[in-house]
Amino acid sequence: MRHDGRRPEDLRPISIERPFTSAAAGSVLVRAGRTTILCTASVEESVPPWKLREDPPSGWVTAEYSMLPGSTAPRKPRDRSGKVDGRSTEIQRLIGRSLRAAVDLRALGPRTITVDCDVLLADGGTRTLCITGGFVALCDAVHALAPLGVDPALVLTNSVAAISVGIVNGQPVLDLDYVEDSRADVDMNLVMTGDGRFVEIQGSAERNAFTPAELTSQMALGEAGLRQLSQWQRSVLGAKWPLDINS
Amino acid sequence: MRHDGRRPEDLRPISIERPFTSAAAGSVLVRAGRTTILCTASVEESVPPWKLREDPPSGWVTAEYSMLPGSTAPRKPRDRSGKVDGRSTEIQRLIGRSLRAAVDLRALGPRTITVDCDVLLADGGTRTLCITGGFVALCDAVHALAPLGVDPALVLTNSVAAISVGIVNGQPVLDLDYVEDSRADVDMNLVMTGDGRFVEIQGSAERNAFTPAELTSQMALGEAGLRQLSQWQRSVLGAKWPLDINS
Amino acid sequence: MRHDGRRPEDLRPISIERPFTSAAAGSVLVRAGRTTILCTASVEESVPPWKLREDPPSGWVTAEYSMLPGSTAPRKPRDRSGKVDGRSTEIQRLIGRSLRAAVDLRALGPRTITVDCDVLLADGGTRTLCITGGFVALCDAVHALAPLGVDPALVLTNSVAAISVGIVNGQPVLDLDYVEDSRADVDMNLVMTGDGRFVEIQGSAERNAFTPAELTSQMALGEAGLRQLSQWQRSVLGAKWPLDINS
Amino acid sequence: MRHDGRRPEDLRPISIERPFTSAAAGSVLVRAGRTTILCTASVEESVPPWKLREDPPSGWVTAEYSMLPGSTAPRKPRDRSGKVDGRSTEIQRLIGRSLRAAVDLRALGPRTITVDCDVLLADGGTRTLCITGGFVALCDAVHALAPLGVDPALVLTNSVAAISVGIVNGQPVLDLDYVEDSRADVDMNLVMTGDGRFVEIQGSAERNAFTPAELTSQMALGEAGLRQLSQWQRSVLGAKWPLDINS
Amino acid sequence: MRHDGRRPEDLRPISIERPFTSAAAGSVLVRAGRTTILCTASVEESVPPWKLREDPPSGWVTAEYSMLPGSTAPRKPRDRSGKVDGRSTEIQRLIGRSLRAAVDLRALGPRTITVDCDVLLADGGTRTLCITGGFVALCDAVHALAPLGVDPALVLTNSVAAISVGIVNGQPVLDLDYVEDSRADVDMNLVMTGDGRFVEIQGSAERNAFTPAELTSQMALGEAGLRQLSQWQRSVLGAKWPLDINS
Amino acid sequence: MRHDGRRPEDLRPISIERPFTSAAAGSVLVRAGRTTILCTASVEESVPPWKLREDPPSGWVTAEYSMLPGSTAPRKPRDRSGKVDGRSTEIQRLIGRSLRAAVDLRALGPRTITVDCDVLLADGGTRTLCITGGFVALCDAVHALAPLGVDPALVLTNSVAAISVGIVNGQPVLDLDYVEDSRADVDMNLVMTGDGRFVEIQGSAERNAFTPAELTSQMALGEAGLRQLSQWQRSVLGAKWPLDINS
Repeated sequence: MRHDGRRPEDLRPISIERPFTSAAAGSVLVRAGRTTILCTASVEESVPPWKLREDPPSGWVTAEYSMLPGSTAPRKPRDRSGKVDGRSTEIQRLIGRSLRAAVDLRALGPRTITVDCDVLLADGGTRTLCITGGFVALCDAVHALAPLGVDPALVLTNSVAAISVGIVNGQPVLDLDYVEDSRADVDMNLVMTGDGRFVEIQGSAERNAFTPAELTSQMALGEAGLRQLSQWQRSVLGAKWPLDINS
Repeated sequence: MRHDGRRPEDLRPISIERPFTSAAAGSVLVRAGRTTILCTASVEESVPPWKLREDPPSGWVTAEYSMLPGSTAPRKPRDRSGKVDGRSTEIQRLIGRSLRAAVDLRALGPRTITVDCDVLLADGGTRTLCITGGFVALCDAVHALAPLGVDPALVLTNSVAAISVGIVNGQPVLDLDYVEDSRADVDMNLVMTGDGRFVEIQGSAERNAFTPAELTSQMALGEAGLRQLSQWQRSVLGAKWPLDINS
Repeated sequence: MRHDGRRPEDLRPISIERPFTSAAAGSVLVRAGRTTILCTASVEESVPPWKLREDPPSGWVTAEYSMLPGSTAPRKPRDRSGKVDGRSTEIQRLIGRSLRAAVDLRALGPRTITVDCDVLLADGGTRTLCITGGFVALCDAVHALAPLGVDPALVLTNSVAAISVGIVNGQPVLDLDYVEDSRADVDMNLVMTGDGRFVEIQGSAERNAFTPAELTSQMALGEAGLRQLSQWQRSVLGAKWPLDINS
Repeated sequence: MRHDGRRPEDLRPISIERPFTSAAAGSVLVRAGRTTILCTASVEESVPPWKLREDPPSGWVTAEYSMLPGSTAPRKPRDRSGKVDGRSTEIQRLIGRSLRAAVDLRALGPRTITVDCDVLLADGGTRTLCITGGFVALCDAVHALAPLGVDPALVLTNSVAAISVGIVNGQPVLDLDYVEDSRADVDMNLVMTGDGRFVEIQGSAERNAFTPAELTSQMALGEAGLRQLSQWQRSVLGAKWPLDINS
Repeated sequence: MRHDGRRPEDLRPISIERPFTSAAAGSVLVRAGRTTILCTASVEESVPPWKLREDPPSGWVTAEYSMLPGSTAPRKPRDRSGKVDGRSTEIQRLIGRSLRAAVDLRALGPRTITVDCDVLLADGGTRTLCITGGFVALCDAVHALAPLGVDPALVLTNSVAAISVGIVNGQPVLDLDYVEDSRADVDMNLVMTGDGRFVEIQGSAERNAFTPAELTSQMALGEAGLRQLSQWQRSVLGAKWPLDINS
Repeated sequence: MRHDGRRPEDLRPISIERPFTSAAAGSVLVRAGRTTILCTASVEESVPPWKLREDPPSGWVTAEYSMLPGSTAPRKPRDRSGKVDGRSTEIQRLIGRSLRAAVDLRALGPRTITVDCDVLLADGGTRTLCITGGFVALCDAVHALAPLGVDPALVLTNSVAAISVGIVNGQPVLDLDYVEDSRADVDMNLVMTGDGRFVEIQGSAERNAFTPAELTSQMALGEAGLRQLSQWQRSVLGAKWPLDINS
């Protein structure tokens, strides 16, 4: 039993408010346990400069990640240095790569979708929840482009979700909250498509290096969790679920 | 009749979710019409360096203001220059000064309360809603300090609320939304205490300078609106309402 | 009687050296009491990017404000952070808005006038003296454009001046110097056109909120002071005084 | 056969000049194929501020990564923005975490070793060569501390090396050069200790997600390569090889 | 004859207003031809951190150089990047080194004098006029310290002045203005003490390298000019002239 | 005799590895005594914006200077402020000006050659070795442009080399190492062309001003050293030596 009553293989309860605000084409508030994130997907009819070398230029999907000052106790000072800190940079690059794995950028056409992930409350697992929730906001934004002649079934070629696994007190566990995360020996994040292929594997052991056997057991736990999250996304998205549209 | 059906003297409907998140001592989500703001009030047991010259150092209340990228259409790029833009600087200084007008910093003791105002959706009147909503978050944070020996009745010496008025199509109107704001000849923001005194008056006419008579009619509209907001704060805060505690 | 012998309704002695330097089209050194400011108005034959969307693009008038390190004791370190501090940002936005209230930007044509206000000695009231003196430099720069076919009478549609008022020891006073400013309960800045309309009203009470009656008495003091400054500008500008040209 | 004549399981030839310069305690120039990196390990008798909370404070090992402008064609402009770009941030955090996996920071005592990895020529695999070569420089620096009473056998608890694997043209290959890297579907970096445990696994598929089977074959290739690099480090370090000292 | 009627060996007319403002201990407005500079010398009762290693710490004299935006036509944009541009950096380091050559920092005691040189109008020769005029402001600041027990005769051990020479149209000339400077083949700046020794020699030939003979003729011109400037400083400073005090 | 056994007029032993890396058109590792510098010369087929005003635009040669963190003991922290420090700015401007003195920018055509000088080990005289070694890298890069129709004999109109001289313990000495440099009363750097004309003279006396006689003896020492370095460059460059090609 874990400190919050979950079994090693249990996800935290996950919920969504959708749409949450009205300015961006996609806007969802996702919660997993106490972790709370606002994901908005905004569309711009332009592409980054380096895309213009393609003829015709394909589209772009990118992500930004930020924690609001009040999302943690003690308060996290707003970074006024103009520098995105190393951790945030890594996270937003991961989110962007993961979301792009589910999208055909050519079919999107010469436009950019930016998925902003603003953490309102941080209690572990923010980067993976950004991917899982951000994908829903992305789907909403792509479907909102249908009147412009965009075919969502061509743009959304897959689904993508993410989860953390780790080893806490020698026990592999799924979906760590902050208390577990701060005690874990190994911290892994897995990103998978809805059809069961890996987009990212990131495993990091600062305290104790891990054996091949420990790697295997964590991977099994993570894959099972990702199947559940994929089902949850399917139920949330309904007729917008890419793997049904595309099958 | 205004474009959204309101009369010149009507406020937009205002609502609050409280507490909205669990990390900060005060955390409220306020909405006025479509404008949506998360105000969190975080307490730190330290004061800015220039306060340390006082013996004993009094406390400090400050505010930060930021608009999330997805709060507007088109998306507002995150400022990565490390500079707070001029407009945000003015706004957060205004919010901070206004909130301090309701607080006895000596009674607060040597601690800092930071009220973070993050705009989730911007549809006009964000700075005044930050003050009106931020004051509620501030009250919650001050009351949360009671176990540390802080007496909320000594710290909270007044209440404070704010509203905008302007002249649109030659007509003074209250609580402008974005559509009205972008057409207004004059843009005024009034900040008042619950006992009817001014904290701030900011009136600015970039297009047409205004006559003393126009000033008078706007002030009347604003004062009436502020009395309503003060009543709303009283109903929201209940037993925490400073003017009842202190009377 | 005030600490320097003035009555509540007295301005400090004001003087001007004009032109002070020869590179900029307008260049004046203004002094009010000890406060000393160099205002230069430079013309560029281009407009900011966002002006180019207009067809034809109208002109632009903007201001920058800076205090030299030696303008105060102790020395004010030069800001090497690349950030304009909050106070300076507020001030230069105020100066720019105020000067634009006296100018028809379409008649100016597609050019930018930048009024640089560099404080050589700071003894209170710098922002209002920047407006009052900057307007003179602006007039000189506009008149210097006559050979390019610019009609100063069309560009300069009004005059503009500014003054501070405040409540010191419970007494409303005009044109505060540093000693008074640092003790004032209320700090107001009024900006008015030569024909008696308001451009800006900024009143701020960090220490004690002020009553409607106190507001009224300060406004009366300020309006009287602004009439004197307007007359002073008229005498300085002579044939360049806009309200005479345009009447 | 690969474009440079190697088989899928072949490493590029690796060589080292040691010591290369005389200012830092450890200084090696490593080359793998054309990729050329200068790794220096400098010791400072102080620790980062957050270490001072420990009593007694343990030591710290950190890394910095930079590419010289002339290391690529076209020239890579020196970053004058003051921001470490996202890619460099990720890389230097990876190098630091990896090197720390081989060190007992308590045994190091209250000092910091900074391993600077400056890329003189970039032809793929720079981040992994930084780890493999940086570990040699780190060992030299630790041994140079013996006169200060530091016991290298206690500080260096393991060895660490790194290698890249990827899928190019559907074929898993080891130790990709730039040409291969720019065509790879999957890009993995593996970091392992000399005793066969994982420190980091980072696999990323921007183009095509990869199956569990593809993951397995890449891991096998990488583990074999890492065993060779570990042997190479052992031969280079001789009596300084930690696993011999500690066995 | 030169374009402004001077002979090759003629200085421009030089004048001074002293004191010009009242906040800093030394404050002079110097003009050479049209070039106009405000030099203020401010005293702080502290020294830079690296001075604290000395026991007792000696004092410090430093300089800052800046051109006001309106000092040139076209206007020089204010640098908001937070970086001092390369040219300004070189100039202020030169001014600081030159002034320190006339000062005994130990006799100054643990305080810092900052000489701010703000160029109000730039017409060539600004860096040398900063040294010549800045030295006068520095003397005033040192003498103002007498009530604190500082002996000016011990602190001011020498005088220092500077001038430019160059080769224009094949002719060596003294004290170039902007028109001459922009056409010069060689640009030299000489800094000398009142007793005839060199503090700095900086000669730079971007267009045509110069022969040893050309070097000799420029040096002769410069030395004669520096003797005149030294006499001018002596007449301006009167009883504060260090070489009389110390002889 | 000097501390390392040299006579006052002796250069340190100088050596070169050429080419050192393969990405840049010119790449040399130069050593003078312990000082070790990597100079790479990279060609870009574009020119800075301000060159585009010329018709046709001439080319550009520029330099950048940086010290690697491990080049000194204690370690020199990498500057993450985004600001090039004053010393580096001065040095890289000096290197660029010096190299341009040997080049006909019109004959180069509309392209930029950037000479990056990265100091791998600093033991005095880095700026002059950058010029002497950078010139060799520059020649290699210019000759590599021959296939593009560039005539090296027209581009390279001269050679350029540099050396330091100084006064240590009252004795003029040539080519100071760090130990001597840190004790020197005068620090001079001389840059000369292969045909015996001055490009730069920079002499600076922070401690003791120097007499005209001391200037003369230092110049003689420097000119003799520069003749030797010019011969060394000739022997290194062989058929690429400009003064032979052009004679």
